This record gives sequence, structure tokens and C-alpha cells, in this order.
Amino acid sequence: MPDGTAGTVAPILVREDRDAVATLVLNRPAARNGLSVALLDALAVELAAIADDAAVRCVVIAAAGPVFCAGHDLKEITARFADADGGRAFFADAMARCAAVMGSLPALPQPVVAAVGGLATAAGCQLAAACDLVVASDAARFCTPGVDIGLFCSTPAVALSRAVPRKAAMEMLLTAEPIGAEEARRIGLVNRVVPAASLREEAQALAARIAARSALAVRLGKRTFHRQAGLPLAEAYEVAAAAMVDNLLAEDAAEGIGAFLARRTPEWRHR
Amino acid sequence: MPDGTAGTVAPILVREDRDAVATLVLNRPAARNGLSVALLDALAVELAAIADDAAVRCVVIAAAGPVFCAGHDLKEITARFADADGGRAFFADAMARCAAVMGSLPALPQPVVAAVGGLATAAGCQLAAACDLVVASDAARFCTPGVDIGLFCSTPAVALSRAVPRKAAMEMLLTAEPIGAEEARRIGLVNRVVPAASLREEAQALAARIAARSALAVRLGKRTFHRQAGLPLAEAYEVAAAAMVDNLLAEDAAEGIGAFLARRTPEWRHR
Amino acid sequence: MPDGTAGTVAPILVREDRDAVATLVLNRPAARNGLSVALLDALAVELAAIADDAAVRCVVIAAAGPVFCAGHDLKEITARFADADGGRAFFADAMARCAAVMGSLPALPQPVVAAVGGLATAAGCQLAAACDLVVASDAARFCTPGVDIGLFCSTPAVALSRAVPRKAAMEMLLTAEPIGAEEARRIGLVNRVVPAASLREEAQALAARIAARSALAVRLGKRTFHRQAGLPLAEAYEVAAAAMVDNLLAEDAAEGIGAFLARRTPEWRHR
Repeated sequence: MPDGTAGTVAPILVREDRDAVATLVLNRPAARNGLSVALLDALAVELAAIADDAAVRCVVIAAAGPVFCAGHDLKEITARFADADGGRAFFADAMARCAAVMGSLPALPQPVVAAVGGLATAAGCQLAAACDLVVASDAARFCTPGVDIGLFCSTPAVALSRAVPRKAAMEMLLTAEPIGAEEARRIGLVNRVVPAASLREEAQALAARIAARSALAVRLGKRTFHRQAGLPLAEAYEVAAAAMVDNLLAEDAAEGIGAFLARRTPEWRHR
Repeated sequence: MPDGTAGTVAPILVREDRDAVATLVLNRPAARNGLSVALLDALAVELAAIADDAAVRCVVIAAAGPVFCAGHDLKEITARFADADGGRAFFADAMARCAAVMGSLPALPQPVVAAVGGLATAAGCQLAAACDLVVASDAARFCTPGVDIGLFCSTPAVALSRAVPRKAAMEMLLTAEPIGAEEARRIGLVNRVVPAASLREEAQALAARIAARSALAVRLGKRTFHRQAGLPLAEAYEVAAAAMVDNLLAEDAAEGIGAFLARRTPEWRHR
Repeated sequence: MPDGTAGTVAPILVREDRDAVATLVLNRPAARNGLSVALLDALAVELAAIADDAAVRCVVIAAAGPVFCAGHDLKEITARFADADGGRAFFADAMARCAAVMGSLPALPQPVVAAVGGLATAAGCQLAAACDLVVASDAARFCTPGVDIGLFCSTPAVALSRAVPRKAAMEMLLTAEPIGAEEARRIGLVNRVVPAASLREEAQALAARIAARSALAVRLGKRTFHRQAGLPLAEAYEVAAAAMVDNLLAEDAAEGIGAFLARRTPEWRHR
């Protein structure tokens, strides 16, 4: 299936930067933004570039068309069942690439906000769950329907089960039933539900507010959050207390605290 | 106390199979379905049989009478305080058996749905919490009242604290106050609240929908879910990605994806 | 800033004992109950004394004035940027003291209830999150606004991320936006929301109900809860089953179960 429209080949991933926010737009609407290997690779390349880009202080992941992301590209997968190895080498490679992209989201220095305006299924639901924050339109739906096609959503379960309570994750995984934006918010998968017409604007505004803070503090904080999350309490406090000391000794804390006490606007060095 | 009614001795655990769903009915209503050692053993025997039974693709745990399960059988316990060792050997054995049954629920190949129509207290609340999914009637209540009898619900806390947020678990454990079905749903202990009159029917229908899927995919998925849940993110993705590859190479995935793309109903080999 | 009012120096931490409940009142209202090193040390001293005090069976942490706790004392911090080492030694010491106090709350033998009547920010939000239970007035607000002053709330994140779902914690940490009492309850940070006028009374009543139970069972239960929480399931059940046996062999369980079966009020030995 050719990606793009009307005689030209549009890029399958579009990056738009504004106000220190990099927005990555999944742009395979005709393929329901399926995560082909090419799209996974494009995401990997852009996320690696963003990780090294001091000018980017927050990231939004959005999508073109009515579907946010329908997960892996099933046509790409079925084509490989005919491989000599039944597809094993291709599937192993594709799953490793997908896990690497998903795992790179919490590892990215900058916070990542998903802007979900439609259906997010399977690895598409995983993509949203793997972001730090999710803004959803009231038309968004989330679903892990692998059991309907004989392919349990095992990798989506990794991100989903770290975002929502266990029984809520199990229900989505075992029933394949989609949930709406408000239910997704109720279980912890979504932070904010906004009108469909203002989704991109709201996600951009949220990201811009984060991007206006000291990049040093935000990056150190995100890294520390994910480092401490799985540790025993005493170790978690050690890691976090060390991060607090480092943060206090960086210039932005002195500036920020001074500005706060003087009731003036801080001037961040690390923007 | 004799189990059963009216001159005959009814089994303390009844198994009913329908549509590839095995329903285990706790059947000591006069003893509020207390988990005597005999009932724990009956559960262990049936669950072991089900684990090896390819014809069973989902399990429902239900109860006869108005009480779902009142936890350990307190009369059985008090009788052993007079033992030479004060009951230590018996209590250690009973607790080990109980923990083995509770631990066998997430370990069971098939998903397990609890159908809770009344009070689920102490180890009875644990039994519900240890199931993969919980359907509750609007008359259900959940409670961990051990502190009222000088016996903190420490083993129920294991299952409860893995199902609900920490402060919600602590409140139930420290206050002994029962919560209703809707509050239990709010905190993540219950998936669905249904009218009392249709509880068994709703639980059966949910289980039957799960049982209609590829057993291979469901079993692999459930196992992977529980394996990855406690792992660091990178290890969790490794485990899950390997499961995805195995799942893709099994016949049901090719059939399921092919059927989906062709908009036809899949014919599972692994039913 | 002198603590206290009108010519006398009031203690910065007030302890009031009633009905086996020790209430610790943060008493620096003019400094928004900022956690100066002196206040952290006063908390450490009192909590250590309470840990050894068999007469105390539950603890309430409350605050004087409209603010529950505004976190670290920023004036104390800014004063040390001028130190020869830029404050490093002081900050490391202060963070270690703070982490020790916060970590001592789940480690305390007795349950701890926070009574939050106003704003709980940064380490003040952490203090509430680190308690076993939180009762909040409808005027309470919770906030981790470190990013507003260039100092990410990394240590508050430790307690917060163990109380609420990951995305809810991330939203508070990245946006610095305060949430109200009901939203805090929705995400699991607060157990009960009560009218402002009855906050202290409700917290005391909750604590007194806990204090009326067998101290042995409550202490063993709280310790076991926190020990098992981070363990793999099988190990968690081993720890908890051993605790159940110990609990059963202590006198209060025999008394409690006997009283329950005889429908009389138990007389706890371990009060």
C-alpha cells in the first residue's frame, strides 16, 4: 500500500516543532496509522534525534486521520507467513524494533504527551500507554483486541499494566472490548479528556507549559521518576534524594527559588 | 458442622461445565462458604484437574447461598487452639494450603472470573481479588475484617494490594469496614457490577466470550501477563516480545489475522 | 523567622495524645508549616518515641493554620547557596533527614493517618502520601509544584508514585497544577473527604477506631503489608502466611475469634 496521497509520497511520520515542543504525527491514515517496520524505524530515528536536541523540551505524539493507531501492520505480517522460516526472523526483528521504540518513550529525556483523537488499538494503545501523559478527545477509544485475531496483546500488556490497575488491564486484554475516553481516564490510562475539535491545541498547550519550565529540572525529574519507580522504598529515596541535591546545585533551582521568594518570573538558564 | 442439606451430604464444591467454561460453586452455604481445609483441598483438586483439561477454556468461581465466602472456617481454627502445639502445625498447614490455592489462580492456564453475589470477607475477599476478573452483583460487599477478631488479614492483603491502590487496601485492612460493589469497582477490585438476578448469567456470558477465542492465544497471554508484571520494563518487553513471536508462529494467529483481513469468522485450531 | 506567636516561642511540633492516638501537629503556620531541618528533626524525635511507646496505637499527623505543609523551607535552602560548597553538604544532609522521616512512616509500628485541611505541596504532599491513610477536608489541595521553581519534586515522587497511578503522578509532577480533595480521592491519594469543620474530629475518630483493635494484630499486619508489597507473589504469600500463623498463635486471635463466635466483645491483651 503506498503511503501518502494524490500522486505524491507523503512522509509516514511528520515532525512539526513549535514553542520547544516537537510533535510527531503518525501519517499513514489510509493504513489506520499501522506501525509498519518503516514507521517504527521512522519513530526510532526521530526520537533518537529529539533525545539529543536541546531545543526540544517536550514531545507530542499525534496522528493524521480518524484513527490514532491500529497497531502493527497486519498486511506486512501476513505477507511473511510464507517466509522459509514461517516469518520467525521477521517477527522477532519487528517485535524487537517495536519494543525498542516503546521503551524509548519513558527513557527519552523529554516528557512525551500522546494526543489520541480516535481509536488506539493493540500496539497503538500501547503507544499511548507508554507516553508519560495522554490527552484524549471525547471520541477516543482504547482497545487491546489481539484475542480476536488469535494474537494476544502481550507487548501492549507491558505498557498497559504499568498504567492501569491489574483487573482493568486484564479485562481489556481478555475481552477485546474498546473503552471510551472517560472510562480510560477513570482507570488511569488518560489524563485529560477534551473536545475533539481542540485536541491538538490542548495537547500542544499542555506540552508548551511543560516546555516553559527549566529543562534541567524536567529532564532530571523524569529520569529520576522512572529510575525510582521499581525500586524498594529505601533505595528509591536514596536515588531521589541524590537527584534533589544535584537539582539544587544546578543554577535553575537557585534562580527558581529566588524568583519565587521575590515574586518575580524566573529566567531559566536551561531552557 | 455437616455440609449439605436434608439428610444427604452435598458436595462442598460443585463443578458445572458449559460452553467450555468450568464453574466451581462453593457449596457450604450454611457455613457461609467458609474455606475449611476440606474446601481448600477440593478447590486445589478441581483447579489442578482444570489446568490439565484442554476442554476448559475459562473458569468461573461462584457460590451457593447469600454469602460468597466468609474466609477461613473459624470453628475449624478455634478447635485447634487446644492442640499440644497450640495449633501451630495445623495453622501452618492450613495457611500453606490456602496460599497455594490462591496462588494457583493467576498460575492457572485459563482465565478465572469470580462471580460475587454477596459478602466476600477475609480469605473470601482474597479469593475474589486473586481471580483475573470479578463480576459482582449490586448486592456484593467486600471486607477484610480480620482486625475485628485480632487476626489481621495479612494473606488477603497480598491479593488485595495487587488489585487496588495502596491506600484503598490499607483502609479496608485497618478499618474492617465493608465496601459495596460500586466502590469496589471504583478502586479496581471489581470489573463489572450487574443486577443480582443476572449475576451467574453475566459471569457465564463473559467467560463464554473469553472461551470462544483461541485457547492458545489466551493461555499464552495470561501466562505472559503475570510473568511480565513484576519485571523491570526492559525485561518485561523481552518476555512479552518473545511471547508475541511464539504466538505469531502458532497457527491460530495466521488464521485469525487472515480471517480479520478477509472479514470472515476465524476457525481456531486451539479451541 | 521566629516560630511561634506573640512574645512566646511555641513549639514547632505539638504532640497531643488521646484515646491511644498520638496527634502530631505541625506548628509553623506563619511559615506555612515548612519542613525546616528543625521541624524534620522534631518529627524524627517524636516518631522514634512513638515507635517505642506501647500506649500509642495509632498516629495522626495534622497541621496548625490554613496550610497543611508547604514542603521544604525555601528560605533555609536559599541561605545555603552562599556556603563554600554551594550548599551541597547542607542539602545532602537535609534531604537525607527528610527521606528518613518520610521512610519512617510506613516503617512505624502504628498506622499513621494524615489530616489534611489545606494546601499540601511538594514535601508536604509527600508527607501525606507517605502516611498509611489520608483524611482530607473538602478545602484540601495537593500539589507537587517543584518544576515551577526549577526543582523537580523527585523525593515527593517516591511517595506519590506508590500511592496513585503512574500517569496521575506524572501529571501532578510535570504540570505543577494543584488538585482538589475529590480528585485526590479519585486517584487514590486520599481515603476520605470530610467537611473542613470536622476534619480533626473525623481523623481522630478513624484513628481511635483503629486504636481500639488489638495492637498486636494491627502492628503485625502493617509490618507485613509493607514487607510483602514489593515481593513476587509466591514470596509475598510466604511472608504473609508466616505472619498469619504468628498472629493466630498470639493470644488476641484466640480471644478475638472466640468472642466473635460467642457474639461478645473481645478483651484484647495487646492494647
